[in-house]
Amino acid sequence: MLRTHTCGELRLENVGQAVTLTGWVQRTRDKGGMLWIDLRDRYGITQLKLEEGSTSAETIHQARNLGREFVIKATGTVIERISKNDKLSTGDIEIQLQDLAVLNPAKLPPFLIEDDTDGGDDLRMKYRYLDLRRNSVRKNLELRHRMMQQTRAYLDSLQFIEVETPVLIKSTPEGARDFVVPSRMNPGEFYALPQSPQTFKQLLMVSGFDKYFQIVKCFRDEDLRADRQPEFTQIDCELSFVSQEDILNTFEGLVKHLFKTVRGIKISELPRMTYADAMQYYGNDKPDTRFDMRFVEMNSFVQNKGFKVFDEAELIIGINVTGAASYTRKQLDELTEFVKRPQLGATGLIYARVEVDGTVKSSVDKFFNQENLQQWVQAFAAKPGDLLLVIAGPADKTRKALSELRLEMGERLGLRDKNTFAPLWVLDFPLLEYNEEEKRYFAMHHPFTSPKQEDFSLLETNPGAVRANAYDMVINGVEVGGGSIRIHERPLQERMFTLLGFTEEEAREQFGFLLNAFEFGAPPHGGIAFGFDRLCSLFGGADSIRDFIAFPKNNSGRDTMIDSPSPIAETQLNELNILLKKS
Amino acid sequence: MLRTHTCGELRLENVGQAVTLTGWVQRTRDKGGMLWIDLRDRYGITQLKLEEGSTSAETIHQARNLGREFVIKATGTVIERISKNDKLSTGDIEIQLQDLAVLNPAKLPPFLIEDDTDGGDDLRMKYRYLDLRRNSVRKNLELRHRMMQQTRAYLDSLQFIEVETPVLIKSTPEGARDFVVPSRMNPGEFYALPQSPQTFKQLLMVSGFDKYFQIVKCFRDEDLRADRQPEFTQIDCELSFVSQEDILNTFEGLVKHLFKTVRGIKISELPRMTYADAMQYYGNDKPDTRFDMRFVEMNSFVQNKGFKVFDEAELIIGINVTGAASYTRKQLDELTEFVKRPQLGATGLIYARVEVDGTVKSSVDKFFNQENLQQWVQAFAAKPGDLLLVIAGPADKTRKALSELRLEMGERLGLRDKNTFAPLWVLDFPLLEYNEEEKRYFAMHHPFTSPKQEDFSLLETNPGAVRANAYDMVINGVEVGGGSIRIHERPLQERMFTLLGFTEEEAREQFGFLLNAFEFGAPPHGGIAFGFDRLCSLFGGADSIRDFIAFPKNNSGRDTMIDSPSPIAETQLNELNILLKKS
Repeated sequence: MLRTHTCGELRLENVGQAVTLTGWVQRTRDKGGMLWIDLRDRYGITQLKLEEGSTSAETIHQARNLGREFVIKATGTVIERISKNDKLSTGDIEIQLQDLAVLNPAKLPPFLIEDDTDGGDDLRMKYRYLDLRRNSVRKNLELRHRMMQQTRAYLDSLQFIEVETPVLIKSTPEGARDFVVPSRMNPGEFYALPQSPQTFKQLLMVSGFDKYFQIVKCFRDEDLRADRQPEFTQIDCELSFVSQEDILNTFEGLVKHLFKTVRGIKISELPRMTYADAMQYYGNDKPDTRFDMRFVEMNSFVQNKGFKVFDEAELIIGINVTGAASYTRKQLDELTEFVKRPQLGATGLIYARVEVDGTVKSSVDKFFNQENLQQWVQAFAAKPGDLLLVIAGPADKTRKALSELRLEMGERLGLRDKNTFAPLWVLDFPLLEYNEEEKRYFAMHHPFTSPKQEDFSLLETNPGAVRANAYDMVINGVEVGGGSIRIHERPLQERMFTLLGFTEEEAREQFGFLLNAFEFGAPPHGGIAFGFDRLCSLFGGADSIRDFIAFPKNNSGRDTMIDSPSPIAETQLNELNILLKKS
Repeated sequence: MLRTHTCGELRLENVGQAVTLTGWVQRTRDKGGMLWIDLRDRYGITQLKLEEGSTSAETIHQARNLGREFVIKATGTVIERISKNDKLSTGDIEIQLQDLAVLNPAKLPPFLIEDDTDGGDDLRMKYRYLDLRRNSVRKNLELRHRMMQQTRAYLDSLQFIEVETPVLIKSTPEGARDFVVPSRMNPGEFYALPQSPQTFKQLLMVSGFDKYFQIVKCFRDEDLRADRQPEFTQIDCELSFVSQEDILNTFEGLVKHLFKTVRGIKISELPRMTYADAMQYYGNDKPDTRFDMRFVEMNSFVQNKGFKVFDEAELIIGINVTGAASYTRKQLDELTEFVKRPQLGATGLIYARVEVDGTVKSSVDKFFNQENLQQWVQAFAAKPGDLLLVIAGPADKTRKALSELRLEMGERLGLRDKNTFAPLWVLDFPLLEYNEEEKRYFAMHHPFTSPKQEDFSLLETNPGAVRANAYDMVINGVEVGGGSIRIHERPLQERMFTLLGFTEEEAREQFGFLLNAFEFGAPPHGGIAFGFDRLCSLFGGADSIRDFIAFPKNNSGRDTMIDSPSPIAETQLNELNILLKKS
């Protein structure tokens, strides 16, 4: 090695040792004949010290010409520091510099390589290799590394076997849009990049692999939103001869293991909530349970009191915002605007304050007397100082609006601390959801999810009411993982395809290999997949997944650093038997 | 779980326990009112026992109707076996069956699910999920799993950080042919799939990641040979502030760790051989050093003796095949045909036998007397019973032919045992190789490899003679890994691109991001990549990589199981702004 130690490892016990360090110049200070250099590498920062008179004039001259981010090699002796720096692990020592070599100079970086950088998003993406030098970004990727190692350690200890499934597979129209790859050797034909290794992991169960996992790249050619990447990483798992209960226990174990080993947090048993309850109490199938603030359904005691908005509403629901009775008119107007935004589209917001004396002051006092309002207080178990916020309207829309308002209030009240974690299981999802535009059912999870045995009879009569053996893990309002017990019998799988509008031929053409496989001894099986990028950002206490991905793409799917995608040569197009469409 | 134990875990100490097993019916035997079922899962085989009179008639009836590969659940009591089976880990016990449930019936598999299958390659590929059930194939993938875990454990312990690099990158004309992915959001533009994460791992060094690794899929759209896959897996590593020596030590350590933990084999220090020596002594830059049989150069003592073939040859080289003097005329004719095959193209093979009395009998006795021939004996250190095989001709061709003959003789003499391992480092590769067709130099390793400092002056005068800081790890005649110390300075990298025939603009357009990065403080760095599929097959003592890949493609790049690649819908083509070329 060009160095004897890293910039993060020298301590008081090393005092007196001759050492050589390498790294980047974080900053230099030059004051009254003394010079200090902060030398940085991945492991930390060590201070180098030069002194006119004792350090050679040449070395001092060299040091004075160092710029930020120069790569240097520094040789010297470890000495005890007079004024210690508690913020650095190496803060008790410094290096009395003897010799300095510039390994590579550096132009001035286009933004500050500091925790608080002055670089905007675009600049940071273009110079991602500099952005990755920042402590905060590097720590995210170190966390991701630990998450990976600990995930594998846990699953390996349970005899899961890691199997790599292919990246060049077959395009299927079900699900999101595929990225495709033209085949040169098979003109006119295309591979597709996997949206998930779903069918392959099921085939591995048919093969008897019993317990499979993989941390694997997946691909979706979807319009990108702030937090969606065209390529993303999944912890993908499948098990044979298991019930849903076994899967929940196994992966509750994984998440506890990760919290313990990566964050040092002990998580107790994960609560379980049905999809129906999640919708009823949180208006959302991924409730943020860091705080309570459950929905209260008010139809039974507020309708037929002469308030038209309530009387005509399909659903009237509210939340109790503890201690928010002091909200001003202006704040309440803000909240009203919040729920009236086009994406939520509530027609208005009704509030009721519980005053210190227990009386209620509401925005609908005209229609409800104090006796009526005390019924509200009771239903919400409200106390003096509480604020009730109520929305009325069509059920789905109203639930969605109140769900967003609940999150907003949680945010405002500081109940959504990023370093508090509230994981839970959401269970018993519907098997299908009806798409009004296409006038057909879609699989809520995917076409391989099994219906609950007790709902079998509904498959013909009321498919929308059939519940699936499907489960999501939700943490802090984010769906971090989801899975299901799969169908493992050909007749049921065929019936499912029919329900989803596949003709027999389409089903055979696209999934014939799986249908065939089910006839050669397929075991009962099920699995789960975790969104790894999201899980990492959650563990890192961050909102965005971007800074947990080494080289992310922007919202147009571009990597501005390498300038990709880009045109390819005419000869390449020819070899692939494709032409560009003239626009 | 549907089971209490796996089929590989019950032992004598479990006798008396009530257990439930699940798995596949390997076979049933029915004899004199007794029935035995071999029940198989990933973990082993357990024998189930039924007995007329003691087992219920219904269960016996069910058992008699079981076919091969039926998936069943069996409940019973563990009993000691009267005739033990030493071949099974569970061979001391069997299960006295009480209850039997068929979880899924199975059609008769198209080939035998046994170590020795009757299935041909095509059938096994089409029903890969059944082929994967075979013990031998499953064991290969289990070995691969262990290789992965141990590789990561070793590198993690050395503070390497696992970073995922992107799969959707940019096409560059240098190197092999890229697979490309049309971008829907950026019409007319394409991503490429990485042939390796080379530039990204170098950027991670610029970012200060210090030690990076990844077990990563790579892609090459090349014409496929028996043992080449369009997608393959690489152990990819890069380190900063290191010399070549550090890299050799680190990865010698990795390979030793793998041999020890995965195969229980202790490997001593890896020999090191220069490229020049490998070519001189083995005619090959990946010598199989499980056996010696080094080339002896004979020009100095065989030319000018009147034998035209030798006199006109650029190079005359031979090997000493110990103990093969008894080779018959017919065998020698075979070897002559072997080296005369079109792909080797030697004009002939000269032999010389050392007889019991020390005299030599050669195929060129006409030109060489006994005194001459004793010079041969001396040069080869030959002993009575040895056979010398000699080829003469143009240097490169002759080396290649003798190299192949050497391997053939090693094979014939049983010196290439698949469970003996002879790893070594080959060092000091040439930086460039001249391509006669394109009349230009190509990078032997890749354009980012640094030339040896002491050969810098040759860059202008004799580029072909410049040696690189490049190294390969070779095991048993297979190149399992290779790498180099990289260029980390923009001027040298630009000079390298110029040598390779890039215009300034081409270099900037394709690799501008890397050239720029080198100006912002790039540390000295280097790395290595191992072909993981090949490494696994070598560790498994196998020739082919196919059976170490769960779902390989055939020689036309097809996955015949899922029938991919395949045509895609017109709407997909439209969205991607491409057309198929009419043929």
